[in-house]
Amino acid sequence: MFNIALFGAGRIGQVHAVNIANHKESHLYSVIDPHPASAEALAYQYQTKIQTTEEAMSDPDVHGVLIASATDTHADLIELAAGHNKMIFCEKPVHLELERVHQCLATVKACQVPLFIGFNRRYDPQFRRLKNLLDAGMVGKAESLLITSRDPSPPPADYVRVSGGMFRDMTIHDFDIARFIIGEEPCAIYAQGSNLVDPAIGLAGDIDTAFIVMKFPSGAMAIITNSRRSGYGYDQRLELHGEKGLLTAGNIKENSVEFWGKDGCTAAKPEHFFLQRYRDAYIAEWSHFVDVMAGRVNPETSGIDGERALYLADKALESLQSGKEIKL
Amino acid sequence: MFNIALFGAGRIGQVHAVNIANHKESHLYSVIDPHPASAEALAYQYQTKIQTTEEAMSDPDVHGVLIASATDTHADLIELAAGHNKMIFCEKPVHLELERVHQCLATVKACQVPLFIGFNRRYDPQFRRLKNLLDAGMVGKAESLLITSRDPSPPPADYVRVSGGMFRDMTIHDFDIARFIIGEEPCAIYAQGSNLVDPAIGLAGDIDTAFIVMKFPSGAMAIITNSRRSGYGYDQRLELHGEKGLLTAGNIKENSVEFWGKDGCTAAKPEHFFLQRYRDAYIAEWSHFVDVMAGRVNPETSGIDGERALYLADKALESLQSGKEIKL
Amino acid sequence: MFNIALFGAGRIGQVHAVNIANHKESHLYSVIDPHPASAEALAYQYQTKIQTTEEAMSDPDVHGVLIASATDTHADLIELAAGHNKMIFCEKPVHLELERVHQCLATVKACQVPLFIGFNRRYDPQFRRLKNLLDAGMVGKAESLLITSRDPSPPPADYVRVSGGMFRDMTIHDFDIARFIIGEEPCAIYAQGSNLVDPAIGLAGDIDTAFIVMKFPSGAMAIITNSRRSGYGYDQRLELHGEKGLLTAGNIKENSVEFWGKDGCTAAKPEHFFLQRYRDAYIAEWSHFVDVMAGRVNPETSGIDGERALYLADKALESLQSGKEIKL
Amino acid sequence: MFNIALFGAGRIGQVHAVNIANHKESHLYSVIDPHPASAEALAYQYQTKIQTTEEAMSDPDVHGVLIASATDTHADLIELAAGHNKMIFCEKPVHLELERVHQCLATVKACQVPLFIGFNRRYDPQFRRLKNLLDAGMVGKAESLLITSRDPSPPPADYVRVSGGMFRDMTIHDFDIARFIIGEEPCAIYAQGSNLVDPAIGLAGDIDTAFIVMKFPSGAMAIITNSRRSGYGYDQRLELHGEKGLLTAGNIKENSVEFWGKDGCTAAKPEHFFLQRYRDAYIAEWSHFVDVMAGRVNPETSGIDGERALYLADKALESLQSGKEIKL
Repeated sequence: MFNIALFGAGRIGQVHAVNIANHKESHLYSVIDPHPASAEALAYQYQTKIQTTEEAMSDPDVHGVLIASATDTHADLIELAAGHNKMIFCEKPVHLELERVHQCLATVKACQVPLFIGFNRRYDPQFRRLKNLLDAGMVGKAESLLITSRDPSPPPADYVRVSGGMFRDMTIHDFDIARFIIGEEPCAIYAQGSNLVDPAIGLAGDIDTAFIVMKFPSGAMAIITNSRRSGYGYDQRLELHGEKGLLTAGNIKENSVEFWGKDGCTAAKPEHFFLQRYRDAYIAEWSHFVDVMAGRVNPETSGIDGERALYLADKALESLQSGKEIKL
Repeated sequence: MFNIALFGAGRIGQVHAVNIANHKESHLYSVIDPHPASAEALAYQYQTKIQTTEEAMSDPDVHGVLIASATDTHADLIELAAGHNKMIFCEKPVHLELERVHQCLATVKACQVPLFIGFNRRYDPQFRRLKNLLDAGMVGKAESLLITSRDPSPPPADYVRVSGGMFRDMTIHDFDIARFIIGEEPCAIYAQGSNLVDPAIGLAGDIDTAFIVMKFPSGAMAIITNSRRSGYGYDQRLELHGEKGLLTAGNIKENSVEFWGKDGCTAAKPEHFFLQRYRDAYIAEWSHFVDVMAGRVNPETSGIDGERALYLADKALESLQSGKEIKL
Repeated sequence: MFNIALFGAGRIGQVHAVNIANHKESHLYSVIDPHPASAEALAYQYQTKIQTTEEAMSDPDVHGVLIASATDTHADLIELAAGHNKMIFCEKPVHLELERVHQCLATVKACQVPLFIGFNRRYDPQFRRLKNLLDAGMVGKAESLLITSRDPSPPPADYVRVSGGMFRDMTIHDFDIARFIIGEEPCAIYAQGSNLVDPAIGLAGDIDTAFIVMKFPSGAMAIITNSRRSGYGYDQRLELHGEKGLLTAGNIKENSVEFWGKDGCTAAKPEHFFLQRYRDAYIAEWSHFVDVMAGRVNPETSGIDGERALYLADKALESLQSGKEIKL
Repeated sequence: MFNIALFGAGRIGQVHAVNIANHKESHLYSVIDPHPASAEALAYQYQTKIQTTEEAMSDPDVHGVLIASATDTHADLIELAAGHNKMIFCEKPVHLELERVHQCLATVKACQVPLFIGFNRRYDPQFRRLKNLLDAGMVGKAESLLITSRDPSPPPADYVRVSGGMFRDMTIHDFDIARFIIGEEPCAIYAQGSNLVDPAIGLAGDIDTAFIVMKFPSGAMAIITNSRRSGYGYDQRLELHGEKGLLTAGNIKENSVEFWGKDGCTAAKPEHFFLQRYRDAYIAEWSHFVDVMAGRVNPETSGIDGERALYLADKALESLQSGKEIKL
């Protein structure tokens, strides 16, 4: 049984809390959050204790840490945990600045602790199944990958301002999925974007609608289409065209009930947002991390994946700002 | 080139007129209709002549007749045409009374002319494909057949009153499809019905909603579900469950455009009614009849099929009225 | 926190065990099973105790019992639990003989304990949604209900022999759903059936393929189509035709990945069987029973529902054997 | 009745021949083709005459010409027809060199004859419906357009060599559709491409897989994904994301029959190629051109559309070769 200290009792911390508690090899040992009421609520719900960062890090009964706190604390907490020899599960991103990520990963390496980065979509059963079928040769060699990723509605401008921008905040998941599916590092990237959804996002210096094209050494190409607002739920789809056909991973609908009437046949929307769509993915990634802690496997998504995805986000931004394709 | 005399210039006559005119081996030679304005309109459109029944029957240049006139004229016209050695395409039914059908078919037999009965659905490419896949062994032996057949909206009560009742007028097509798909004659039949759609139909002594169960000697079973009103277009579906799986033939939608919005994902309704849904079936059945006239094939749906379907309609009515399963 | 004694550690007992354990107001207090190894395995997994029937019934710390043992023990255990003032959740059926059910329910009534019968499908989110939309008037008055219910593969003949027959064992769920959706008691029933799937089932005196037609006082009708084998997973669908259109509740597919290749576009099968398809239904019905225990609601599915469904099964058998529609 | 001289008796000429012949206001007056056997076959089928280019152009009974001959003859024939005051329907493209197109359109303008360019997809009922719903405000302002356009299998390398390259030969249709749907001229374009399908295409100096991103003055963006080979039929889809949701225009399937078995649920592929998919579009565009000839409407797709689409193809090629986004 692995004792886990959970950093961050917010929305994403709560998602992980239930999975830690439900897994038969892990135990939610403590909660750490700068906001006392949040920590208390979560600690009460799971009948667990509240610790400070220092207490948790120096507590020999803590085997692993799950870092789901504010983005700007990730790198510091990773280094602290590594220094105390804790096994680390960290939500993306490691940090918004590539240099800092680099430094942080060097520390982790020096300390020889396992680091897992929570790119949850790789553990989505639909995307995983598509990847497995591709690897099994069902469509031959990968040629074109289309990644559709649209949030149901835009975040507040205040969030946008500290988010690192759309590419580092939102597209970062899609960069990772592209690398995961194609199984290569892209060699060229081009980005185009607009501020169409909410003028406040534009005022905050960001875009809310983006297309990103990547080319890979094998000649395969990927296109990511992003929007901060769909109007019909969380739109998360893959299309992988290969030599011998097409593999698609579609949305999961809210329900299977349809109404047929004079205005047409109406089915349910895609599930609302990531808490619903990736519920099973969060369970699967936690299960994978337990396997990592138990020494049964190496982390499938590690610091290098966090670094590579952030690098692509930076280069996409460079392309957007320069109007040029960037060679990688 | 076969010269065709078309009896009946109404809705269904117009459907056939265009197919006769478009087929490279048939020519719309003349139109016969007791209502002069209808005959004139159609004759003008196809630049063809108007004849009386007597003229058409005795005209040696007429090779075939297409009978799309009022139901109560079918048997008489068939006999007349047979007596004049014309090849006969007749819309279902031959007659609403089984005894008269019997008599009429005996005359046709004596005259040795080909008689084709227009059970259009057998020539629908979807249903035909399902039948071909079944015959090719795709699902093994047939076990359960579900026939969904719902009109978009009810006919006027005046029509209902002379229609021979729902089973003889509407279900007759489904009886034929059941025989076609299963490839056996049913050995038991049960019918249940209600008047739910329009009280005027009930006042006219008929039902508008019906379920009919049939059992076949092999043990296979079929269920027909009928309604005079769907509210969402013409609902024409088959489900054939066999040993090794399921074959379905779904509706054809009005278009392939979908709208995804906050209230769900809306696709088009099924095509509106038989003129749209069975457009290709009418073309295919005419093409088949041209092959019959040319002596290349025998009629796939002949007088005996008209008689058997009417017999099942009569027995369904007997079941409905007696509340008993009828052995056949 | 309600302490629950679980009778039966087999497949269905295991389904309930996890839901009892996961619910924040219920505790899996003990397990009772005549087969020691089964009881031990489950007790070990949930770190709970093993009791005998007598111990559990007389234990004042047991608040409720969940009866998931062999069918022929249900009625006796219900009466015993009622006599000891325990709240009762019992899997369907109460008993295979209507007279015994009647007697048992009288005992329950005399003891004034709540009895919940586990008709899980009523708690399926898809079927529930369809029912709610119907009640909200989305399609007006109900006219025709089509219930498709097909198991993936047939049970062993040994099971069939003690199952009470297809109608009491399998169709009983569909009878309950028909009553639930239409909201009336049927006034006529007709059944037709065949032995097509496995000759051993026929030798055991049962059928494996069935159509059942019911008529309701409002004129609405329902058809149930059953098979002991689909070949493509668990086929659980509803079609409810009303005045203003159609509501359908479709299958849930195993995944959302499709392959498009030269032989067509292939999507996943329906989920394999009831453990998958009704996973959420089992959670929802347990949550409902906790509400019942807490006195917040009355049982939605109680002894009378068990009795009515069994009555319909008996009458369907009478119809099958007599070849007659049975008035109810 | 308009007499039409048809230039080109090949595959696309045959598509138009049947539509000309079937339209009640047009007559297939003559066929012109440098290959005598082709001309004779078509002339025989429609019982029409064969002419030389000179005869047809100088024949006062010819009202309109349909140019479906080899691409390099289009501009010359257009100018010749314009000089003889014939109304002109020309298959895309006018010419592969923009300068020659420019010159040719100037001649047409000077002669004041109507010129229609056959961008058939604009007349596809599915795409037209999507456009109409967009214009009617169903999804608010257009934001992102995804155009999927994949041929079933690659053309021979010999064809590729004289085709003008993928962008001028294949993508040109998609450029036109993008302009049609968004209703603006793009202000920036970027193209990425690979030779993945057939090495012979690469040896011929072309690509066979391409992504093209365009940005429009309103901020809307479009992405075209092309491949010379799908492996599963002709893949022709649109996705238009707007402020209030998504409009999609899907493929038309070959049939509506599905098979559900142990390996999944298999539906039909998309229709095979443009002759099937755009059959109704060819009829609709001919009907539109008859309206143009009758003076009832102006051509919806005229020389300027041909010129703009070719311009975009040229700029896409410039982007592909330079690795830069091109401002327009």
